[in-house]
This record gives sequence, structure tokens and C-alpha cells, in this order.
Amino acid sequence: MKINKDKKLLFIGDSITDCDRAKPEGEGMFGAYGNGYVSFVNAFLTSTYPELGIRVVNKGISGNKVRDLKARWQEDVVDQKPDWLVVMIGINDVWRQYDIPFMKDHHVYIEEYEKTLRELIESTKPTVEGLVLMTPYYLEPNKEDPMRKTMDAYGAVVKKIAEETNSIFIDTQAAFDKLMENIYPAALAWDRVHPNDSGHILLARTFLTNIGFDWTK
Amino acid sequence: MKINKDKKLLFIGDSITDCDRAKPEGEGMFGAYGNGYVSFVNAFLTSTYPELGIRVVNKGISGNKVRDLKARWQEDVVDQKPDWLVVMIGINDVWRQYDIPFMKDHHVYIEEYEKTLRELIESTKPTVEGLVLMTPYYLEPNKEDPMRKTMDAYGAVVKKIAEETNSIFIDTQAAFDKLMENIYPAALAWDRVHPNDSGHILLARTFLTNIGFDWTK
Amino acid sequence: MKINKDKKLLFIGDSITDCDRAKPEGEGMFGAYGNGYVSFVNAFLTSTYPELGIRVVNKGISGNKVRDLKARWQEDVVDQKPDWLVVMIGINDVWRQYDIPFMKDHHVYIEEYEKTLRELIESTKPTVEGLVLMTPYYLEPNKEDPMRKTMDAYGAVVKKIAEETNSIFIDTQAAFDKLMENIYPAALAWDRVHPNDSGHILLARTFLTNIGFDWTK
Amino acid sequence: MKINKDKKLLFIGDSITDCDRAKPEGEGMFGAYGNGYVSFVNAFLTSTYPELGIRVVNKGISGNKVRDLKARWQEDVVDQKPDWLVVMIGINDVWRQYDIPFMKDHHVYIEEYEKTLRELIESTKPTVEGLVLMTPYYLEPNKEDPMRKTMDAYGAVVKKIAEETNSIFIDTQAAFDKLMENIYPAALAWDRVHPNDSGHILLARTFLTNIGFDWTK
Amino acid sequence: MKINKDKKLLFIGDSITDCDRAKPEGEGMFGAYGNGYVSFVNAFLTSTYPELGIRVVNKGISGNKVRDLKARWQEDVVDQKPDWLVVMIGINDVWRQYDIPFMKDHHVYIEEYEKTLRELIESTKPTVEGLVLMTPYYLEPNKEDPMRKTMDAYGAVVKKIAEETNSIFIDTQAAFDKLMENIYPAALAWDRVHPNDSGHILLARTFLTNIGFDWTK
Amino acid sequence: MKINKDKKLLFIGDSITDCDRAKPEGEGMFGAYGNGYVSFVNAFLTSTYPELGIRVVNKGISGNKVRDLKARWQEDVVDQKPDWLVVMIGINDVWRQYDIPFMKDHHVYIEEYEKTLRELIESTKPTVEGLVLMTPYYLEPNKEDPMRKTMDAYGAVVKKIAEETNSIFIDTQAAFDKLMENIYPAALAWDRVHPNDSGHILLARTFLTNIGFDWTK
Amino acid sequence: MKINKDKKLLFIGDSITDCDRAKPEGEGMFGAYGNGYVSFVNAFLTSTYPELGIRVVNKGISGNKVRDLKARWQEDVVDQKPDWLVVMIGINDVWRQYDIPFMKDHHVYIEEYEKTLRELIESTKPTVEGLVLMTPYYLEPNKEDPMRKTMDAYGAVVKKIAEETNSIFIDTQAAFDKLMENIYPAALAWDRVHPNDSGHILLARTFLTNIGFDWTK
Amino acid sequence: MKINKDKKLLFIGDSITDCDRAKPEGEGMFGAYGNGYVSFVNAFLTSTYPELGIRVVNKGISGNKVRDLKARWQEDVVDQKPDWLVVMIGINDVWRQYDIPFMKDHHVYIEEYEKTLRELIESTKPTVEGLVLMTPYYLEPNKEDPMRKTMDAYGAVVKKIAEETNSIFIDTQAAFDKLMENIYPAALAWDRVHPNDSGHILLARTFLTNIGFDWTK
Repeated sequence: MKINKDKKLLFIGDSITDCDRAKPEGEGMFGAYGNGYVSFVNAFLTSTYPELGIRVVNKGISGNKVRDLKARWQEDVVDQKPDWLVVMIGINDVWRQYDIPFMKDHHVYIEEYEKTLRELIESTKPTVEGLVLMTPYYLEPNKEDPMRKTMDAYGAVVKKIAEETNSIFIDTQAAFDKLMENIYPAALAWDRVHPNDSGHILLARTFLTNIGFDWTK
Repeated sequence: MKINKDKKLLFIGDSITDCDRAKPEGEGMFGAYGNGYVSFVNAFLTSTYPELGIRVVNKGISGNKVRDLKARWQEDVVDQKPDWLVVMIGINDVWRQYDIPFMKDHHVYIEEYEKTLRELIESTKPTVEGLVLMTPYYLEPNKEDPMRKTMDAYGAVVKKIAEETNSIFIDTQAAFDKLMENIYPAALAWDRVHPNDSGHILLARTFLTNIGFDWTK
Repeated sequence: MKINKDKKLLFIGDSITDCDRAKPEGEGMFGAYGNGYVSFVNAFLTSTYPELGIRVVNKGISGNKVRDLKARWQEDVVDQKPDWLVVMIGINDVWRQYDIPFMKDHHVYIEEYEKTLRELIESTKPTVEGLVLMTPYYLEPNKEDPMRKTMDAYGAVVKKIAEETNSIFIDTQAAFDKLMENIYPAALAWDRVHPNDSGHILLARTFLTNIGFDWTK
Repeated sequence: MKINKDKKLLFIGDSITDCDRAKPEGEGMFGAYGNGYVSFVNAFLTSTYPELGIRVVNKGISGNKVRDLKARWQEDVVDQKPDWLVVMIGINDVWRQYDIPFMKDHHVYIEEYEKTLRELIESTKPTVEGLVLMTPYYLEPNKEDPMRKTMDAYGAVVKKIAEETNSIFIDTQAAFDKLMENIYPAALAWDRVHPNDSGHILLARTFLTNIGFDWTK
Repeated sequence: MKINKDKKLLFIGDSITDCDRAKPEGEGMFGAYGNGYVSFVNAFLTSTYPELGIRVVNKGISGNKVRDLKARWQEDVVDQKPDWLVVMIGINDVWRQYDIPFMKDHHVYIEEYEKTLRELIESTKPTVEGLVLMTPYYLEPNKEDPMRKTMDAYGAVVKKIAEETNSIFIDTQAAFDKLMENIYPAALAWDRVHPNDSGHILLARTFLTNIGFDWTK
Repeated sequence: MKINKDKKLLFIGDSITDCDRAKPEGEGMFGAYGNGYVSFVNAFLTSTYPELGIRVVNKGISGNKVRDLKARWQEDVVDQKPDWLVVMIGINDVWRQYDIPFMKDHHVYIEEYEKTLRELIESTKPTVEGLVLMTPYYLEPNKEDPMRKTMDAYGAVVKKIAEETNSIFIDTQAAFDKLMENIYPAALAWDRVHPNDSGHILLARTFLTNIGFDWTK
Repeated sequence: MKINKDKKLLFIGDSITDCDRAKPEGEGMFGAYGNGYVSFVNAFLTSTYPELGIRVVNKGISGNKVRDLKARWQEDVVDQKPDWLVVMIGINDVWRQYDIPFMKDHHVYIEEYEKTLRELIESTKPTVEGLVLMTPYYLEPNKEDPMRKTMDAYGAVVKKIAEETNSIFIDTQAAFDKLMENIYPAALAWDRVHPNDSGHILLARTFLTNIGFDWTK
Repeated sequence: MKINKDKKLLFIGDSITDCDRAKPEGEGMFGAYGNGYVSFVNAFLTSTYPELGIRVVNKGISGNKVRDLKARWQEDVVDQKPDWLVVMIGINDVWRQYDIPFMKDHHVYIEEYEKTLRELIESTKPTVEGLVLMTPYYLEPNKEDPMRKTMDAYGAVVKKIAEETNSIFIDTQAAFDKLMENIYPAALAWDRVHPNDSGHILLARTFLTNIGFDWTK
């Protein structure tokens, strides 16, 4: 288990992270962690490693693109002084290019995405003990689909930055691809983006495995 | 224009037809026709052929499969004594096989679909002046996608029955396919089923063209 | 088709334009264009000319008079940098003279109407590729009715300004008059102002025909 | 003052009578009389003739046509054993012919209207002390307007039945016509049917004057 | 009729005036005048003297005491430039002494009441054509009741100031006293303050009679 | 303390008893006893005599008259098998004579009141260990007030029946009269019927004292 | 993994099972499995063993005691024809003895509990492939606490019946006890019964481990 | 009775004090005192000592810790100029250490608690006639429970400060402990903190007895 006692673990991202978390705190009682993978990660850590006292904070905001993260990075990441930081961003950067194609000022193309994400990660890496980068994903098994193709390119950027900065890299797309070998995407999410509990449990498990969670404990 | 003066034109189907129409009437003031293609068809007929006095009735119910149409056919079709009947059904018959794959009693497989639809159409054809069969569709341009493939098979059944019964056949999938050459499906519907106004206007135009609507009038 | 690729087409006006559009954006997903003729225009353009990528923006606000347009012209028109601009205003300028006759400071009489509208149009005409002026209307077939008479006078002002500024002129009143030869106004709108889908489809068709929309495409 | 001590005065009709009265009672505290002319009549009687103890009951139901009155006449009139009965019906019988012209089974044409109303009045007249027939009306000053013309014909039926049965006749249309010489109809009602307090006060005053109310008391 | 053509008639007061009027305007369509005596006065003036075009404005605010009127007098009276002003205040000044007797800073005793009201009236009298002072009232017929006694003293102050300033004086308490000879107060208002339509109609009639309304017109 | 261990104490009455209790149970968690004197009695018994385990049930229904109690006596009293029964009824029997004076079928005059109450009490007395009769009351200190006078007459009936049946008699009116020597009724209840916590605490204390509650325990 | 392909796994119980599941189905899309441990079990099965197609059904109802299960056993268990059945009941049987101690007819004492549960399990065991009995629990670490003691006795009954019927036995209390060595119960549930996600994840993991879920898959 | 005529008695604290009081006033009509022990104290004082005219003000705010009291002390205590002050604080200071153990910045440990409370009390004592300090409590009868132990330590601090400052000390924990000898805590509060009416009545009685309330008056 890579996270040590009394550490603060902060998640930042879009609606996949947000999941109706308490705002602005993102932690506390009464569903404050939302109803998605962040809450499940917190629940696994609390119920399995209660002695570690790991403090989880959820700073996801639905609809966010990397451009939005940049705008609130000081307040929602730096000022929070996390020990571990998890970033999953990019779905909306890509999706807007496909669902509102004529509103180009709402698109974040790959150059801006890469530049902005790298700035954020590079500036923050030295201040944290652990940094996890999760790829954006699209629940479309057809790799020739245009939006899937674009999403894969953004995922590749995440991988590159993770390697450059020596961060933990998690390929959420790969995890979903494996699952979609047996399950059609509509069984996870009608819109191929916002999954039901099956998808969020998969994300939580994938994350936990990558940080050394001991499933036999 | 194939529909004559003072005729009643009844639409039956699923959520694409329903679109929050007034229940149970399906006609009248204050949005009674719903906010989808049926209301647009009615608006075009009223504003272009007011002298014909064509009475439109919307009997769509969200989530319906052909099995549900059969259960309410007497009340919602036969008793209504329509002069013209429009049927678009099958999306949910297929979709449930993909989004709740383990709940098999909610699936309507192609044999039941074909048998039921044929019974309904054959029994009703002699009682109406005009009968229009519209295919179900899926806003997925990849024809190798499993659900798209299944949907196409169901559409082929509709075509076959239309030919057998000498009904007007409308290939909604073909209309959407043409549009998707330029527009990614997410710009029409996040869930690839329930389109925005662009999709419903397309359905209305396609329907009207097929019944001889004069666009230059 | 007069509007070219990648152009922005902005509508400004009163409740006929507004129709519960998303505020303040007036564009995007989930019914952002409202449920009136602007959304129908957008749907026709998107479904028929998807390759043009025309971006529609709805800046209507219910209850507005030309005096209100002036107050928000900088923010809602100039700053938006539209390529094409469509203006339909005047119904409330006239209506208030008849429904709250004693509250004279809420009336915009014809001199102020003409002067204000001309200023707005003249100042903006040089900055856009296309400018469309639509008359206000009243769903009252009796041309001797006092309010109809006043509305016609305001419509004449619109026509005059359109001619002066070489703008496209659309006579919505004439379109409705033709329809009312067969349909009593109560079948379009109980209040003779806010029409149902039949009226909005008529407005959309009239607009589209005037900008060269190809109905046979 | 024609109504005597301790009598029950029952109003039946459509939305003009109803005005959100308490259902099913139509009398009592907390706005039970609705917010229209029936409540104002009750208020005038109570505040001016408290010693008479006249009991007012409101049995209006929005949207009713004479066909609907017939269906509930036993329960809402006969069983109530009123001493005085006031009937105002017909607006919806006419209106539906104009606002949903193609839905002919919702129209009550003048033959049915006259026959039904006469049956109801003739059968009830012998059981009451006083019977008041009020015309339906339309807030349209143009007597050549088709709907106004029809409404006037229905009003003439009311007058005829009132004379036949020796009932008190109140010409509400005439009262409104006089008012509309100075006020445009939109200042009373956008839809030319459901008036604001000015219209309801006029109805109440006209009714009271016709039953001998002493305005100088 | 004392009020002339095109004049503005402004009412200010407490909940008896307010009655859920539109805020802040206090005039316009859709129940803007509230559902109390002010709306009834407006309805009588509009329906009987439409040719005068008298503009009514309702500036009542529930719970107000004379102290509150003073605080908003500039904005809600002076800036409105009324031609006629009607003031009815004092019920809450008295009531609070009896329903929250221990919260003395919420009481307005008679010295402050008289001084404040006189200042307001004296300063405004020269600027208006007509000024009407209506007494506060309490629907308690027992003149020995302590709160009734206090209310009568406040009413006497109103009378004195009306005489000093040559304003029209209306004794609402006297009007209600006469009515209560036949009706127990609970039939008008459970709380002996906020009457039903019977009480508001009485207030409206009393007001109108005092300004020369012709009931036989 | 007159009530013994493990006994069921049932209250029946009108809104003073009801106070928004859980329906139909009238006992349990989460405010099931309402927010009036019954809940306070229960709270005093539970917090002072927890060892007795007295079970309180609240069967009050707002607006009830003795006529209504009779209609539900079998279900809400007899079938409940209470050990102790408390009845407070009569306020609405009287009040309706004063607030809806013309609706005489809603009045329960004193003969019916006495006869009905006596029947209920006499038939139930033999089946219970203890029976408490509480007078109705009116928060009007003036004993010459007509409604107060009537209420006192009904209270005298309660006293008479209590004596006849050897029941515990509680004079709630006397308790309130003493309080009103120092407090104006509006400080307890604007409508002189439904008191705030001060009134309900007084009722609870008066009840408890009458059943031998030891305040020094 | 003990559950085979295409099997139906049904959960029945109280609020811990229910968790706002869809009623009456207990399966499907849009949170139909509730937000508790049943949904998490389903999510783990779907995301880890999609190829097995295990169908989960949630038939929990908040507040149920074993007495309630018996009443709906035919409809909610037998008629559903499950292959695997999971039963967790007893918390409310015990809790009511402590939170509404005087309402004894709401208590289910241990004799009734044991007899009823045994009947249900014995009658159903032969019809299913697998049967899992989970103990009720109380999040109170002090084993001398009276309610905890009682709960432990009920848990022992579950264990006994599991052994008698050769069912899988899951000791939820033991799982929570281990967790509470490090976490105070208030961090799991203020009421010591309804846990947050940490508690439900613990229940889901404990269940899955007991049916042979492979955490390394 | 220690509180004299016309004095102001102010309560400050957390949710036990707050109980949904009117904000910001904390006094007045319509449940302004909340539905907890403060309202019951007010009701007892008003109904038993109406001649004293004691003014009660409730300044509790749910969730407050002593740290929060300090932040609003000037506004909510000093500026209010109370004659008597009652302080009950500390439950949340302790609870947060147990229900969100990892969020340490939300904990108020005993040193800060004692220092802050002493500052507030010492600075205010000279300005009031009477000062009452009530302990925080936890409805947990097991004195070895960790949270109960901590709460007792905080209660001891309150006692010490009361003695130092010669304030009236009320041991609420002791009062509840005595009650819990006969009643399990779940019958008072599922969460062992927010009691039902039984608990609040106990608090009110304990408070009143400590200020010399005469229960036999």
C-alpha cells in the first residue's frame, strides 16, 4: 500500500470525479464524496485500512475541461496541500468537439490540452508524495470511431506526461475495453461516458490496484 | 398530398413518438402532440394545408416494444378509427438486449417482433386508407456495431412487412445515416436514440416527403 | 442558400424568439435554442446543411421592446460578433398600449420605435454579412382592429428600415394573414401573440425560404 | 332585493364561474368561492345584507360545456336543493369550434346546446324560487368576427329560453360591449375569455343589479 | 367622482393593502394589484370609468408599521409622483403590543405613531391633488377590549391629522362595526385583522363612496 | 400518579389534539405524537416515569366535531382498547356557528352535542380504567362575547357529563382565563383557538396535574 | 466462484438491503439496485464476471422485520424463482424493542423470529441452488450493551438455522466488529444501523468473499 | 424564581438550542423559538409567569462548536445585551473527533475548548445578571465508551468554569444518565445526540428547576 498514514488524497476532474459531491468541501458526512468512484475508493480505504486514517477529498466538477482545472488549480489543488493527487481530465475536452461541433470556442484541442496538463502536473509534482494520472475514456469499443480515436490520442498525452513526470499512470480506457469484450457499452452508460455503479466500481478497483491496495487484507 | 380532407392521422410507437404528449388524449391544445416529430408533422400540415383539416393523434408511449403495442392496439388504434396509421416500433425491442442483457424476459427477439408486427399490420390494413411503416433506427454509423446490426435486421423486417401489405415504407435509418456522414451522432443524441430537434425535424421532413407534402406550397 | 460555411447566425427579439432558451448562452445542448422558431431554424440548418456548420445563437428575451434591445445591444449583439443578424421586435411595444393602457411609461410609441430600431440597424449593418428584419405581427385577421392597425404601422416601419439599409425583409404578418384565411386565430394562439408549433413552424419556414433554403435538398 | 332570508343561491357554469373554487364543496372559508365573480357576489351579499344570511354555493368547473352540465346536473344542482339557480354556460361550446377545429367531437353545436339547456332549465324551473340565465360572451368587439358571431347566436338561445321559462335574463355580452367602447379587450383578458378583476367585478355588479341589489344601502 | 382623467392613485399601507401584490411594481397584469381592496378599487374604476384612465399603484407591504412607511416614503411615495395618495397604517403598530408584548422594540406607541404619520402627511399634502387617510381597524366589536381600545385611539389620531391637513377621512372601523352588528368577526377573519373578500369588498365600497364613485353609473 | 404501569392512554379530539400527528397510527418515532399538548404529555410521562412504560396514542383529527368522533369511535377508540381515554371536543361544533353562519348543516347545536357526547362517554366508561373529559375553550376573555358564551355552555355540558359518569373533569377554559388575566389572547393565538407552545404547555401541565403527576419527582 | 452462468441472485431484507431501490422491480437501469451493498455486489459481478451474466434482484424493504418477510415471501421470493437467495433480517425485530419500548406489538421477540425464519428458510432451501444467511448487526462495539446483546442472540439464531439447513453463513457483526477496533461507530453511522459507503462496501466485500469471488481476477 | 421582571434571557449553543428557530431573530411568533427546549422554557415562563414579561431569545446554530460561538459572540451575545445568558456548547467539538476522525481541522480539542469558553464567559459575566452553563452530553450510558469519556471531560471543563465564574451550573449529562437507567438511548435519539420531545422536556425542566421555577405555581 503506497499511501501512508494520515495522508490527504485529493481527486480532481470532471463529472466522473464529481458525481454530485458536496460543494465546495468535497469531504465529510452524508454523501460528501459523491456517488462515484471517489466515494468507493474512500470506502475501501476506510473499511480496509482504518488504521491509516487516509483523508480523501473530492474536487471534481461536472463538465470541466483541462482549461477549467487550470482556472481553479490554485484554490482547489495547491491551497489544499494534498499529499497525493489524482487527476482524470479530458473527456469534455474531446466530447465538445463532437456534440457541439459548431461552437469551436468550447473545444480544447490536443495542443492546448497537452500544454495545460503538463504545466499543471509539472508545477505540482514536486509538492506531493504521489501523483496519479488517469486517462480520459470513451465507452466505445470501436477504435476506428472518430471520437474514440481522438480520446485515445488524449489518453496517449496523459501517458506521456505520466512518464515524463514519473507519475503513476492508469489506463482507464484499457480497463473498460476489457470489460466491453463481454458487455455492450449501453449496459454501462447510455451516453458512453457516465457509467453506472459497475463502471465506477471498475474505476475504483483499477485505481486501488495501482496504488498497491491489498485485496486479500 | 396523399391524405385527404377531414382525415384522422394516428401515430403509434415508443418514446420517439411520445415525446411527452398529453395522455391519454394525444391531441388538443397546450403541447398535446408532444415536442417531437409528431408535433412537427401536425404543425406542417396545419400551417400548410389548413384547408384540409387533418386531425393528428399521437399515441406513442415511452419505452414501448411491439409487445406493448399489441396489448393496447384495440384501445389505442382500433377504437380510434384512424384513416391513416403510422407505426414506428422496435428500438426498445433491440435496446433492452444490449442495456439489460441479463434480464432476458425484457427482450423481444426478432421472431416475436416480426410475428407480432405482422399480425397488427395485417389486421389493421383493411380498415385504413393509408398505412405507413417507419423503421426503428440507431444513431450509430458503424454498421458492424452489434446493436446497429440487430437494429438493421429489425428494420429489414419492417420493410418486408411494408412490402407484403403494400404499406408506405420509410427508412429512418437511411435518413439518419446520410446525416451522420457530416455530423457525429453525439451531436444528435448522447444516447444515440433520443434526438434533439435536428433529428425530429429530419424525421418529420422524411415522413412528410413520403406522403406527398408539397414543400413549395 | 445565402449563409456560408462556419458563419454565426444570431437572433434577437422578444418572447417569440426567446421561447425558454438557455440563458445567457442561447446555444448548446438540451434545448438551449428554446422551443420556438429559432430552434426549428437551427434544426433545419443542421439536418439539411450539416456540412456548412452554421452556428445559431438565440438572444431573445420575453417581454422585450426595442428600448430593451438598445440597452443590451452591445453585450448581446455587438460583442457576439455575428455574421448574420435577425431582428424581430415590436410586439410588446404595441401590445402594452392596449393591455396596460394607463401605464404610459411602458408604451413605446412609433416615433421612438422607428428612431431606436434605425439606430441599431444602421450601426450594425456594416459589421455583418447579412441582416434580416422580420415584422412584428398580431394574430388578428381584422385589419380594422385598433391594435392590428397599430401593429401594421410598426411593420411598415420595419419594411422602410429594411429598404433603407438593404436588409432582407420578412413580412411575418402577411404569412400569418394567409394562414388565417383558413384557420381562426384561437387555433394558433389564445392570446393572438404566442403561437403553438404550427405558428413557429410557419415562421421558421418563412425565414428559411427568405434566406434561400433549398427545400428539395 | 329579490332573494329572501336564509335562501341558497347556487351558481353553475364553466371557468368563469369556477375560478379555482374549493372542490367539491364550493362554499366555506379560505377562498372556497374562488377568485371570480361568484366570490364577489357572495362578498357583496354578506357585507351589505348580512341579516339575510344568503348562502352562496359555487359549482363551476373549468372547461365545461352544456353537455358536461347535463352529466352532473343531478348531483350538482338537483341534489343541492337550491332556492335560486344561476347558469352561465356556452363559452367552451363555441370556443372549441374555433381553437381545435379538427376535433369535431369536442364541439357542441347550437342545436345540441339549445336542446340540452332547455331541458335542464325547464326541468329545474319549477323547483326553484328564482332562476337566472346569463349569456356566454366573447371579449371581441368586432361583431363580424366569426367566433363572436357564433357566440351571439348562443346568447340569443339563452335569451329565448329565459323568456320561455320566465327566468331572469342577463346579457353579459352587452355589459362587456359597453366597457369595450373605452377599453381594448387585451386590457381585460389576453385570451378574450378569462377576465381580470375588472371583468369579474363587472359581472358581479351586473348580476347584483339584476337581482335588485340596493347600491345605496 | 373626485379623481380626474389620467391621474395616478397610489395606495400605501400594510398587509391589508399588500395582499400579495406584484413587487416592486404594484401595478400591471396578472394580479399585480394583489387580491384585496386595492385590486377591487382598481377593478371598479376600470370597469365603470374606463374613459378616465386612472392609474392605480399598490405599494402595501405586509407587516409594515408607520415606522416602516417613513423608511421607504421617498422611494415608494415621493418618487412615484402620485396625484392621489391613500394611506392606511397602524394595525401592526398596535397589534405587536398585544401579540409580542415582551418585545417592546417592535411596538410603535401612539406618540411616535402620531408624530411620524403627521410628518409624512404634512410633507406630502402639498404635492398631491387628493389625499385619503383611512383608519386602522380591529375586527373586535367589544369596544372595551384592550386592543380595540388602543386601535380606536390610533384611529382618532388619523382623524385628527386628516382634519388638520384637510384630507379625506375614512373610518374603516365604523364600517366594520356596522357590519359586525349582524356578523360575528370570525366570519370575516379568524385573526380579526385579515378579512376575506367580504371585508375587502366592504373596504373598497367604503373608499369608493368617499371619493364620489357613482354607483348608479 | 393515577395511571399505572404498562397502560395505554388514548387522546381523541380535534386540531388541538391532532397537531400534525402521524396518521393513522398516532404513536411512534419522528414526531408521531404531533407538536401539541399530547406530545408534551407523552414527553413528561416518558422522561419522569420511564419505569411505568405508559403508551400514549394520539387520535385527534383537525376540524372534528362530536359528530365526527361518533363516526370513527369504533375504529379509533373501541378497537384501540385504551386503558385511559381523554376526550376534548366541541370547539368546531361552536366555531362553525360563528365563522360560517349561513351553512347551518355544518353546525352542531348543543342538544346534538350533549346527546352524542353522553352516548359516547356512557358506552365507553365501563371499558376503561380512567376517563378524562376536557372542556372546549375559546381564547376570548370577554364572557359576554357571543361565541365565548356558547363555548361556556358547551363546557358546562362536558362538566355535567363528567359528573354523571364519574369521569375526571378538566376545565381548560378556566386555565386559559387565568393566564389571560396577564396576557392578551393574540399572544397565544391569532385566531383565539390554536395556541402556540405556551398554550399547549399550559394544557399539558393542567392535564398532568389532574392525573396526579408529581412535579417534584 | 460459486454462482454459475445465467443465474438469478435475489436479496431480501430490510433497509440495509433496500437502500432506495426501484420498486417493485428491484432491478434494471438508473439505480434500480439502490445505493447500498446489493448494488455494489451487482457492480462487482458485472464488472468482473460479465461473461457469467448473473442477474441480481433487490427485494429489500425498509423497516421490515421477519414478520414482514413472511407476509411477502410468496410474491417476492417464491414467485421470483431465484437460483440463489440471500437473506439478511432482524435489525428491526430487535431495534423496536429499544426505540419504541412501550409499543410491544411492534416487537418481534426471539422465539417468533427463530420460528418464522426457520420456516421460510426450510421451505425455500430445496428450491434454490444456493442460500446465504447474513446476520443482523448493530454498530455498537460494547458487547455488554443491552441492544447489542439482543442482536447477538438473534445473530446466533441465524447461525443455527444456517447450519441446520446447510446454508452459507455470513457474520456481518464480526466484520463490523473488526472494523470498529479502529473506527468509532459514529464514523460509519450516526444511528449505528444505516452505514455510509464504507459500511456497505464492507458488506459487499464480505459477501463476495463468502461466495468465492476472485479478487485477483 | 431568580429571573426578574422585564429581563431578557438569551440562549446560545448548537443544534440542541437551535431546533429550527427563526433566523436571525430567534424570537417572535410562528415557532420562532424553534421546537426544542428553548421554546419549552419560553412556554413555561410565559404560561406560568406572564406577569414577569421575560423575553426569551434563541441564538443557537446547528453544528456550532465553541470556535463558532467565539466568531459570532459580539453580534449574537454582546450586541443583544441580555440580562441572563445560557450557554450549552461542546457536543460538536467532541463528535467531530469521532465521526470524521481524519478531518482533524474540524476537531476542537479540550485545550482550545477550555481556553475559548473561559474567555467568552469571563468577558461576559460582568455584563449580565445571571449566567447559566450547561454541559454538553452524549446519550450513551456506558461511561467507558470513548466518545462518552471525552464528553465527560468537556463537561468537567464546563463545571470548572462555572465554579470559577460563579455561574449556575447544570449537568445535563447527569439528568440524561438518570433517565437512561430506565430507557435505552435509542428511545430518545437514534443518533444519541438529537433527542425527541422527551429529551427536550427533560432539558427544559432541568433548566427551570435550576433557576428557581415554582412547579406548584
